[in-house]
Amino acid sequence: MTRFIDVPTMSELAHEIGVDVFIGQLADQIEENFKRWEDFDKSARFGAHCETGVIELMPVADSQGYGFKYVTGYPDNPDNFNMPTVFGFGTLADMKNGYPLLLSELTVATALRTAATSLMAARALARKDSKVMALIGNGSQSEFQAIAFFAHLGISEIRAYDIDPQVSQKMKANLAEYPNLKITICSSTAEACKGADIITTVTADKAAATVITKEMIEPGMHLNAVGGDCPGKTELDAQVVRDAKVFVEFEPQTRIEGEIQQLEAGSPTHDLWKVLTGQIAGRDSAEQVTLFDSVGFALEDYSTLQYIYKEAIKRNIGIDIELVPTPDDPKDLYGHSRRGKRKLRRVV
Amino acid sequence: MTRFIDVPTMSELAHEIGVDVFIGQLADQIEENFKRWEDFDKSARFGAHCETGVIELMPVADSQGYGFKYVTGYPDNPDNFNMPTVFGFGTLADMKNGYPLLLSELTVATALRTAATSLMAARALARKDSKVMALIGNGSQSEFQAIAFFAHLGISEIRAYDIDPQVSQKMKANLAEYPNLKITICSSTAEACKGADIITTVTADKAAATVITKEMIEPGMHLNAVGGDCPGKTELDAQVVRDAKVFVEFEPQTRIEGEIQQLEAGSPTHDLWKVLTGQIAGRDSAEQVTLFDSVGFALEDYSTLQYIYKEAIKRNIGIDIELVPTPDDPKDLYGHSRRGKRKLRRVV
Repeated sequence: MTRFIDVPTMSELAHEIGVDVFIGQLADQIEENFKRWEDFDKSARFGAHCETGVIELMPVADSQGYGFKYVTGYPDNPDNFNMPTVFGFGTLADMKNGYPLLLSELTVATALRTAATSLMAARALARKDSKVMALIGNGSQSEFQAIAFFAHLGISEIRAYDIDPQVSQKMKANLAEYPNLKITICSSTAEACKGADIITTVTADKAAATVITKEMIEPGMHLNAVGGDCPGKTELDAQVVRDAKVFVEFEPQTRIEGEIQQLEAGSPTHDLWKVLTGQIAGRDSAEQVTLFDSVGFALEDYSTLQYIYKEAIKRNIGIDIELVPTPDDPKDLYGHSRRGKRKLRRVV
Repeated sequence: MTRFIDVPTMSELAHEIGVDVFIGQLADQIEENFKRWEDFDKSARFGAHCETGVIELMPVADSQGYGFKYVTGYPDNPDNFNMPTVFGFGTLADMKNGYPLLLSELTVATALRTAATSLMAARALARKDSKVMALIGNGSQSEFQAIAFFAHLGISEIRAYDIDPQVSQKMKANLAEYPNLKITICSSTAEACKGADIITTVTADKAAATVITKEMIEPGMHLNAVGGDCPGKTELDAQVVRDAKVFVEFEPQTRIEGEIQQLEAGSPTHDLWKVLTGQIAGRDSAEQVTLFDSVGFALEDYSTLQYIYKEAIKRNIGIDIELVPTPDDPKDLYGHSRRGKRKLRRVV
């Protein structure tokens, strides 16, 4: 049987473990897989585009396991359908026989893994004495980023800005659970960035926005650019990107989707996984500006599925579903479909 | 909420509708979509290969809908794990906002759609007076093929062969539900093919097998070659392919996966969809040998998902699951994950 984790179950799992602990453990799981980067069969994601958005499939595999995520990006969903911009779900399978071990929601989990990936990168790239983080865009991803950096990186103040002040208030209210984290709501991006050690951008606009400009950058900053993640969707001024030391997940994908899509092909990038294994340096000096040009890579989702599966089995949570058949006689699918007649399950 | 159809529910649905009726209606649904071929955003499937098999993702979309199938091919699964060779499941989504409308098992359904696609092709290509079908390979797909051709194409006798005679007996026993369909179990492929109007090959060997050789071919036959569907996996002698008028689903994919992988690049093929729309001819004469080089294309699965969804909604079957969240405030995913606390669903 396939273990199934729906949205309420994932939500409860995250809060039972603790969102902060979950993100920290997941960052470790992602880092473990990034360190054995070359074991994986990698490809850029496969997208189906329409005028309003995109549906993507993100597969990855090694000799033991296979994972994929279905994920959407529809920036106008909140306005048009009162729906989130991002939906996700995915499967972890046994590469030996193709059996799907886990089917899980990956909308809540994607927010957790994106924060975990940002954390993993910042642990390697940000100045160790970082205390203040500007958080630009206070929508669905923002609380997870704030919790990750507060709990695991020593950030004690978030300077928040969103074009919609109510959204910033929503975030602040949600983060009241963390009373030692100071949240200052600012009236502009520039105000939020002033004096920050880290700038995290998680805006959702599907456009070549210029949220962060050259004047906002101070020596030694770490830029955690999360929201620019598809063709035509960027958040940083090209000069900001050019002036920073740029770190990427999977260069061929980042070249299409990340901030570096604004630069000429062949502009210098550094593989994050090589920093994690110690093959190359991360930050070269306390004054250098580092940029994690995050777009989200399938290996992060694979790691997330592994983590969820391990926790779900250990804690005995979720339900088991017959997503695929395992007939007594594997060559008798027809007979299996006739056997064990049950009443049709009807929606009540 | 997303409608979920598990294996028992799909099995019951197929038998409630009737496997023969299901296949016929599904063939019509597939044909409807094939006739508007150019509306779809098509790509070859994306596979992750290992020594023992492959896991593939097959997406397709038009301006209204999106579908994908997860499907496996592990020929040694029956021997190694007492598991089927093929597992499948998939999703139908609304292209306007990315919302997953349906999550369904697609193992039983893949057998149904493969038979429906074979039927659709044979309706257009086989001689109208066809009565006898050789059925080579009597495993998981075989009953579905037999029922399709019996119920909708006037086939009254199946001449069956499998390297394992017990597998042929299994098929014959399952088909006892159709007393007017005569099943003759043969002791060789050549014996089964002798005098047949249609030859259907549904073997599972992951190898360049030569199940059908030149001597077995008689004028006017229609060859429904289903089992050769991945690189290195073929069933027909190259000369048999060369001598036939070859029809394909999606040429770029068939060139890699189908029987024509044995021929030189650029060997002539004919698009099945153009036959269905009347743009090109199918069979040119009663003596011509036609070959449907079937590999299975995403549009067939998309059509299947559409058909299942329509029937599931109409009949109120399946269950509704929260696969993705729809929070009251679409920008408040964190709050949604905190709200409506439920007890963790635990496996019992």
